[in-house]
Amino acid sequence: MSIEEMHAAVRDFCEKRGWDQYHTPKELAIGMTNESSELLQEFRFKNREGQLELLADPEAREDIEDELADVLLFVLRFADMYDVELDEALASKLEKNRARYPENDYKEPTKTEDE
Amino acid sequence: MSIEEMHAAVRDFCEKRGWDQYHTPKELAIGMTNESSELLQEFRFKNREGQLELLADPEAREDIEDELADVLLFVLRFADMYDVELDEALASKLEKNRARYPENDYKEPTKTEDE
Amino acid sequence: MSIEEMHAAVRDFCEKRGWDQYHTPKELAIGMTNESSELLQEFRFKNREGQLELLADPEAREDIEDELADVLLFVLRFADMYDVELDEALASKLEKNRARYPENDYKEPTKTEDE
Amino acid sequence: MSIEEMHAAVRDFCEKRGWDQYHTPKELAIGMTNESSELLQEFRFKNREGQLELLADPEAREDIEDELADVLLFVLRFADMYDVELDEALASKLEKNRARYPENDYKEPTKTEDE
Repeated sequence: MSIEEMHAAVRDFCEKRGWDQYHTPKELAIGMTNESSELLQEFRFKNREGQLELLADPEAREDIEDELADVLLFVLRFADMYDVELDEALASKLEKNRARYPENDYKEPTKTEDE
Repeated sequence: MSIEEMHAAVRDFCEKRGWDQYHTPKELAIGMTNESSELLQEFRFKNREGQLELLADPEAREDIEDELADVLLFVLRFADMYDVELDEALASKLEKNRARYPENDYKEPTKTEDE
Repeated sequence: MSIEEMHAAVRDFCEKRGWDQYHTPKELAIGMTNESSELLQEFRFKNREGQLELLADPEAREDIEDELADVLLFVLRFADMYDVELDEALASKLEKNRARYPENDYKEPTKTEDE
Repeated sequence: MSIEEMHAAVRDFCEKRGWDQYHTPKELAIGMTNESSELLQEFRFKNREGQLELLADPEAREDIEDELADVLLFVLRFADMYDVELDEALASKLEKNRARYPENDYKEPTKTEDE
C-alpha cells in the first residue's frame, strides 16, 4: 500500500465505526503513547541479544509488528483528521535535525552506547 | 515522498551519524514513547475546542507537526532496521481490529465521548 | 504503612526474587512509563463524568488502584536503589514549582479546562 | 515528611492555584505518563555504567530527582483527589504480585539481564 492507501484504509475502518467523534487530537496522542508503551514493554529487561531473539521468534514478532502497526495507525489517523502532510512534516523535521546534529558529531545525541 | 522515500530519508540521516549501533529495538520504542508523550503534552488540560485552537495557531501547529514527525521517524526507523513491512503490518492489524470491533458495535471501544 | 514501611515492603519483594540486577535506572523508568500508560488507558475516551463513573465501579476502581500502586512501586524502588529521599525531592520540586507558577496566575499551566 | 505531610504539601500547592478543576483522573494519569517519559529520556542510549555516571553527576542527579518527584507528585495528587489509600493499594498489589511471581521463579519477569 502507498501512504495514501494506508490513510484510506485507516479512515475507512474508523468511519465505519463512527469513531470520528472520539478522535480528538488529545485522544489520538493518548493512543500513540499507549501503543508505543506496549511496544516498549515487549523489550523490558532484554539486552540487545534478547531483543533480537524476540524479533526472530515468529509469535513474538507478530505481537511486536501489531504494536508497531498500532502506533502507525494513530499517526496516520492524526495526520488524516488534522490535515498534516506526513512527508512534508518528516522532511521539515529532518531538516531541523540536520542543523541540530551535525554529521560529524558522533557523540550526539548519545554519550555511551546502549550495550 | 513515498513511504520508500521516507524510509530512505530517515536511513540516510541516521547512517550519516553512525546511529545504527544505538538503535536497538528497545531504544527505538523508547523514542516513540518519548515523542508520543511530548505530542500528548501539547494538549494537556485542553478540551476539544482548546485542542483545535492549538492546531489553528501556526506556531503551535509547527510544534505539533514536529512531534508527530518524530513519532513517525522512529516507526520508520524501527521498520527499516528490523525488517517490518509497514503496509503489511498495518493491513494485518486492521484485519484483527475488524474482528475485534464489529462495524455495528458503535459503543466499542468507547463508553462515553471524550468531551 | 509509613513511607519507610512501603520502601521496605517493595525492597523485600524484589530482593526475594533477585530482581536487583534487572532494576537499572532505565528499566525502572520504563516500568513507571508502562504503568502510567496503563492507568491512562483506563480513562481513554471518557469525559469527566465517565471517569468518575469508573472510579465508582468497584471492579474498575480495583484495576485503577492496582495501576496507581504499580507506578508508586517503581517510584519507591527507584528511590530506594538510587538513594533519593522522596520527601526532600518532592519539597525541592514544589519549591521550584512555586517560583514557576505564582499563586495568583490561575491561567498557568492551563489555558482552557479539561471538559 | 510523612506520606500524610507529602499529601498535604501537594494539596496545598494545587489548591492555592485553583487546579482542582483541571485535575481529572485522566489529566493526572497524563501527567504521570509525561513525567515518567521525561525521566526515561534521561537514560536514553545509556548502558548501566552510563546510567550510574548520570546519577553520580550532581546536576544530572538534580534533574533526575526533579522528574521522579514530578511522577510522585501526580501519584499523590491522584490518590488524594480520588480517595485511594496508597499504602493499602500498594499492599494489595504486592500481594497479587506474590502470587504472580513465586519467590523461586527467578526467570520471571526477566529472561536476560538489562544492559
